Amino acid sequence: MALIVQKYGGTSVGSIEKIRSVAERVVELYKEGNQMVVVLSAMAGQTDHLIKLAQEMTNDPDPRELDVLLATGEQASVALFAMAVKSMGYEASSLLGFQVAIHTSRLFGKARIHDVETRRIKEELDKKRIVAVAGFQGLDRRGNITTLGRGGSDTTAVALAAALNADVCEILTDVKGVYTTDPSICPKARKMDRISYDEMLEMASLGAKVLQIRSVEFAKKFNVPIHVRSTFSKERGTMVVAETEDMEKVLVSGVAFDKNEARITIKKVPDRPGIAAKIFQPLFKAGIIVDMIVQNTSEDGKTDLTFTVPKSEFRKTLSMVTQQAEEIQAEKVLGDENITKISIVGVGMRSHAGVAQKMFEVLARENINIMMISTSEIKISCVIDQKYTELAVRVIHTAFGLDDDQGEES
Amino acid sequence: MALIVQKYGGTSVGSIEKIRSVAERVVELYKEGNQMVVVLSAMAGQTDHLIKLAQEMTNDPDPRELDVLLATGEQASVALFAMAVKSMGYEASSLLGFQVAIHTSRLFGKARIHDVETRRIKEELDKKRIVAVAGFQGLDRRGNITTLGRGGSDTTAVALAAALNADVCEILTDVKGVYTTDPSICPKARKMDRISYDEMLEMASLGAKVLQIRSVEFAKKFNVPIHVRSTFSKERGTMVVAETEDMEKVLVSGVAFDKNEARITIKKVPDRPGIAAKIFQPLFKAGIIVDMIVQNTSEDGKTDLTFTVPKSEFRKTLSMVTQQAEEIQAEKVLGDENITKISIVGVGMRSHAGVAQKMFEVLARENINIMMISTSEIKISCVIDQKYTELAVRVIHTAFGLDDDQGEES
Repeated sequence: MALIVQKYGGTSVGSIEKIRSVAERVVELYKEGNQMVVVLSAMAGQTDHLIKLAQEMTNDPDPRELDVLLATGEQASVALFAMAVKSMGYEASSLLGFQVAIHTSRLFGKARIHDVETRRIKEELDKKRIVAVAGFQGLDRRGNITTLGRGGSDTTAVALAAALNADVCEILTDVKGVYTTDPSICPKARKMDRISYDEMLEMASLGAKVLQIRSVEFAKKFNVPIHVRSTFSKERGTMVVAETEDMEKVLVSGVAFDKNEARITIKKVPDRPGIAAKIFQPLFKAGIIVDMIVQNTSEDGKTDLTFTVPKSEFRKTLSMVTQQAEEIQAEKVLGDENITKISIVGVGMRSHAGVAQKMFEVLARENINIMMISTSEIKISCVIDQKYTELAVRVIHTAFGLDDDQGEES
Repeated sequence: MALIVQKYGGTSVGSIEKIRSVAERVVELYKEGNQMVVVLSAMAGQTDHLIKLAQEMTNDPDPRELDVLLATGEQASVALFAMAVKSMGYEASSLLGFQVAIHTSRLFGKARIHDVETRRIKEELDKKRIVAVAGFQGLDRRGNITTLGRGGSDTTAVALAAALNADVCEILTDVKGVYTTDPSICPKARKMDRISYDEMLEMASLGAKVLQIRSVEFAKKFNVPIHVRSTFSKERGTMVVAETEDMEKVLVSGVAFDKNEARITIKKVPDRPGIAAKIFQPLFKAGIIVDMIVQNTSEDGKTDLTFTVPKSEFRKTLSMVTQQAEEIQAEKVLGDENITKISIVGVGMRSHAGVAQKMFEVLARENINIMMISTSEIKISCVIDQKYTELAVRVIHTAFGLDDDQGEES
């Protein structure tokens, strides 16, 4: 008998029919003797619908109240799921964030889980019930409803698995697992059997949106193995686990890309100490996340400073930086929204040299210009012109031996 | 400065625009220096939509989970309302049943309020906030979400007004107040200025659906004056208050009718002790509410027994009774769904004779046959053929001097 935590995403519970299918799948596992804790997202489209309602009311909905509104989505899902299970003749109980209780920080819209109580869930499990927990929601110290941000149900599931010391945490979704790259761009993308937490963090933050980043951080911290797999098949998916030694044998595990950044260059910045701080301070204050930063070698006491920000912050950043540039007497500010950050990720890079070099050569062979480069222990990112995205992903994927020569599995 | 509890029903908050209008009305009162506690129902149609979802899932949705699902309706309303208030530059805070907290019995779908905590609401009021409380919902001793049944938000409002010792409890709705009868049937129906709790209870239970019956019982118990008035105008409505002596001067306060009952007659029942108990026991066991019971004078040791049940229970009751009738060797069972119970209500009846007689005469003058009669201290009910409903209401309304000769107010 195992204690299994499963999380089903919005598309997996997108209709009454689909919720019923999920209930059947869960009941099957329950009948095999497993204890089941099931975390559900809101039905597909529901969260967007609620956000639209709020925006019809006001341009700038109050964050506390927006969380109260959004939390209804998952509440409806767990109620409908528990009804489905009971209509099949099995016992079930839905639990909301406050009933579990899932304690979080007070940062409405992106709260962090502090602590998960287990008493009530264990009582329900002891009564042989299937427990359905509303994902994405918690409550702060004053009893206000909070939400965990997009994909927050993943984190709910991992936090529950950690607190309950579950045997496995399964994330069921509309893809079969974590792929070496996006199959819609690269038909030869291969489903990975395993990936380490650190690789997954790099993949997720680089644009492969299978898991919420925070859920992977949580899983790493508490060493919870995550099984990412399809809601619509029984096939094994991808295990996200702690790094093992043999993982280092693989040079590159995956190729990620992100079209949601924009690039800003300040030309001919007077190169004196403290100048970067002066430029970036207002951005940090405004909560704008600067990703890559590159500073060219100084020439005649002048340097070019280039950095990337989320595309959604591009206009705002451009106007702030233009003002700063004038003050520090830089020459001019250039902006470019048509860029892609393409990255290779792999723990094998730690012990192998020449990986970066190979990536640069592959891109050069296709005449793709590299605008910016940044590296970490287990990833290399290059910013390129957006129009080359698909080509670059495919040639890098092939060059690092990631292609599935059997073609996509059916 | 007054502490005002207001409740807005589903049609009053039926759209984003309407919620905004309600917020404006509440802010206006707040600006006049009043403390505002606002109870909201789900947006019109939302509860029905949720029930439909549940019924798509299963014919017989689990009551606990149905309450979890239904409670999302009021949750959305209070969140949107609080957003609206804040977008106007005033402070507001939504509170759900568990946050207040509103403690109820465990009878899912028709829970009764046991106790209302006031600490959190008072804290919010002390912070000069407008407090929006989700109607219709509470929680039981184990922290399960409960709902109070159709119209339950009225009871939430009255319970809050009682607990907070509010100066007034206003029920804002899509009609201008409580009328002497249904204006859609009788154009000369008049809005009452005042009605006693007991009269209102009789009116409500007889089919004039302005207030949930339980909210009136609650108001009577705690002597909370209720002001029923329109959301869409500033006009005074109807005060539902404790009885005063001068109320007895009015013979009849209103005419109510109910088309939702059906009549069953058992012909030639052997008239011996215990026979009625034998017939009704299985009905009581099945939770069927028997309203009027009439037993004719016995003839040759045989009697006719007639009673009414809710139309929704008619078929079920008929088959149960037919079985009983055979066992006790009664002659036959007759059923009739096309009946109306028409009633006159007034505390004045206590001190005036001849009221019943007048009602019978008025109906006789129109050749309307009376099938059953039942009376209480402050009401007289007659069952008649349904096709005469409108005619009967109008002639009785006129006969007891209830007509508004100025015609309907504009």
